[in-house]
Amino acid sequence: MSGSGAWPDARFAALLGSRHPIIAAPMAGAGGVALAAAAIEGGGVGSLPCAMLTPDTVREQVGEVRNRCAGPLNLNFFCHRLPEAADLGAWRELLRPFYAEYGLAPSEAEAPVRRPFDEAMCAVVEKVRPELVSFHFGLPDAALLQRAKASGARILATATTISEARVLAGRGVDAIVAQGWEAGGHAGRFLGAPADEQMGLFALLPQIVDATGLPVVAAGGIADARGVAAALMLGAAAVQIGTAYLRSPESLIGSAHRGALETELAERTAFTNLFSGGLARGLPTRLTEALGPVRREAPPFPLASAALAPLARAAAERGETGFTPMWSGQSARPAPELPARELTARLAREALALLRGRE
Amino acid sequence: MSGSGAWPDARFAALLGSRHPIIAAPMAGAGGVALAAAAIEGGGVGSLPCAMLTPDTVREQVGEVRNRCAGPLNLNFFCHRLPEAADLGAWRELLRPFYAEYGLAPSEAEAPVRRPFDEAMCAVVEKVRPELVSFHFGLPDAALLQRAKASGARILATATTISEARVLAGRGVDAIVAQGWEAGGHAGRFLGAPADEQMGLFALLPQIVDATGLPVVAAGGIADARGVAAALMLGAAAVQIGTAYLRSPESLIGSAHRGALETELAERTAFTNLFSGGLARGLPTRLTEALGPVRREAPPFPLASAALAPLARAAAERGETGFTPMWSGQSARPAPELPARELTARLAREALALLRGRE
Repeated sequence: MSGSGAWPDARFAALLGSRHPIIAAPMAGAGGVALAAAAIEGGGVGSLPCAMLTPDTVREQVGEVRNRCAGPLNLNFFCHRLPEAADLGAWRELLRPFYAEYGLAPSEAEAPVRRPFDEAMCAVVEKVRPELVSFHFGLPDAALLQRAKASGARILATATTISEARVLAGRGVDAIVAQGWEAGGHAGRFLGAPADEQMGLFALLPQIVDATGLPVVAAGGIADARGVAAALMLGAAAVQIGTAYLRSPESLIGSAHRGALETELAERTAFTNLFSGGLARGLPTRLTEALGPVRREAPPFPLASAALAPLARAAAERGETGFTPMWSGQSARPAPELPARELTARLAREALALLRGRE
Repeated sequence: MSGSGAWPDARFAALLGSRHPIIAAPMAGAGGVALAAAAIEGGGVGSLPCAMLTPDTVREQVGEVRNRCAGPLNLNFFCHRLPEAADLGAWRELLRPFYAEYGLAPSEAEAPVRRPFDEAMCAVVEKVRPELVSFHFGLPDAALLQRAKASGARILATATTISEARVLAGRGVDAIVAQGWEAGGHAGRFLGAPADEQMGLFALLPQIVDATGLPVVAAGGIADARGVAAALMLGAAAVQIGTAYLRSPESLIGSAHRGALETELAERTAFTNLFSGGLARGLPTRLTEALGPVRREAPPFPLASAALAPLARAAAERGETGFTPMWSGQSARPAPELPARELTARLAREALALLRGRE
């Protein structure tokens, strides 16, 4: 196993503290302790997605990772604003035929809602002291951001446009995650740019490098060593990889999702707002095929998910999966299907070989 | 100047016959003899966009390029099907306020319509014998395709999805132009996939390489040496570059378009169907800002352009440009602004340095 000195650009070492310039992306609902630890053991950065966890669970999971291995751990938080009470009538009306099909009553049931980073989570960060904290949907307010920095964590944040990158740089982040059009899951957009103006990674990455001068972590569509090498050529200090880790046995996705990632369905990902209210890239599902992937009836993020939870449960009881999101970036199929530790090591080894000109 | 042997992957030399793996993209309305010849002189492939030319003009322009320099020339043709007579009522109604503003009568005036590759154009190919012929919006029928091949030209065709690449490979093309989400101008989509399923180049390029085994030319968002090197890392045999050449003095774009490519407007390109009826990526204009970039009132490609022509002329008489498309890919700003010959040589020199690890 080569040390970080083997990489032609070693900026990542000071930023990430890892042997390889690879972050296993935080994937809420799909990534947990096993995936994070295996990525660290492979020489990368492990991530715990915290947006759907309680502070106590975050503390527990960090402990479990630390018990298993030493190495850089990234805690990821969302920084959305919870919307004012929204009218869910049109949304429930749109879902009514599915409720009828499964014999469900129109429900007021609340599903767990994604919470933004707050005082309680910040206290956890101060206590468990992760090497890295990454934010999605912008940044927390100045006081919380300052406390996260003062904990000793390097601060990363996601930009989907060059304007967002400039704002993040102005607030003093240590690095920017350039999230290209290709990326699976929720786009971290926070300045309200039209969704169809999002740039592909080929365009976004070098322009964020040029605009900010900060280390940039490339995200979106990177699933094998070719992608890692290409991102470094475009000026990335490191890469963040999601979908390839989704295919590893450590990910928590269901078998329908796992199976679909191997098929031609994986060539047809699209952004949908049906599962949360926010735009996120995933595979076609029964729900997105029936309604079309983007509907104005869906309430703002994260409020759409509550009304879907009873449907997803009822469908699951019949062995069906059409109301559960199947997030995926655009490069699921080239991803090698390996345990996360082996995946990390192989991505690094093969990317280094490409960069040295020995394919 | 280094020979083609300096490139780590020399597949492009047999395909393109050029010193460098760079094609100056065909850009209808913006590229002509001067741009094609300068790109050839710089060691790349020059392209003549023929979709808006008559057969006689194609013959003349090829003669002018040949008089100026020797080297590989690519003739580009569209292969769309002309739609049956469409109802233009809703489209004209949508444009009525603009017609009123400029004192124009509702017009039946016809603008020159983009014609698909046909018998007459094929006869020109057989006569002038370009080294390369590239097709957009699919391929011509089998007889015409066979004649184009028999002329001695290498055949390239554009794919915006992996499915399209498989179809093109099955029809015997020599190489596939993988057109990513980032690319400016008209997307060459021909199998009717939803526009928002188009992949960024990071995802599209390696998957087309894997699916077809053919040489792949990477297109979309490549505007500087970083992009050239990254595309080769992802498995491209060569790159096709448009927007960077648009900024060269040899391009035929107007000063408003040229100026806008330098501004933050260039970070906000989007697909619009307003100028032709087909989806094409460009900068915001008065028309796209006023109506929104995509409208269902626009008739099918290429019929939207006729009703816009009087508006564009009337606006031009007042020194305004809001009704003329300003095509651009997503990477206008990183592009070095240089004469096309110097641009080609510099892209090659700097990409080679990056690939050799000496930035």
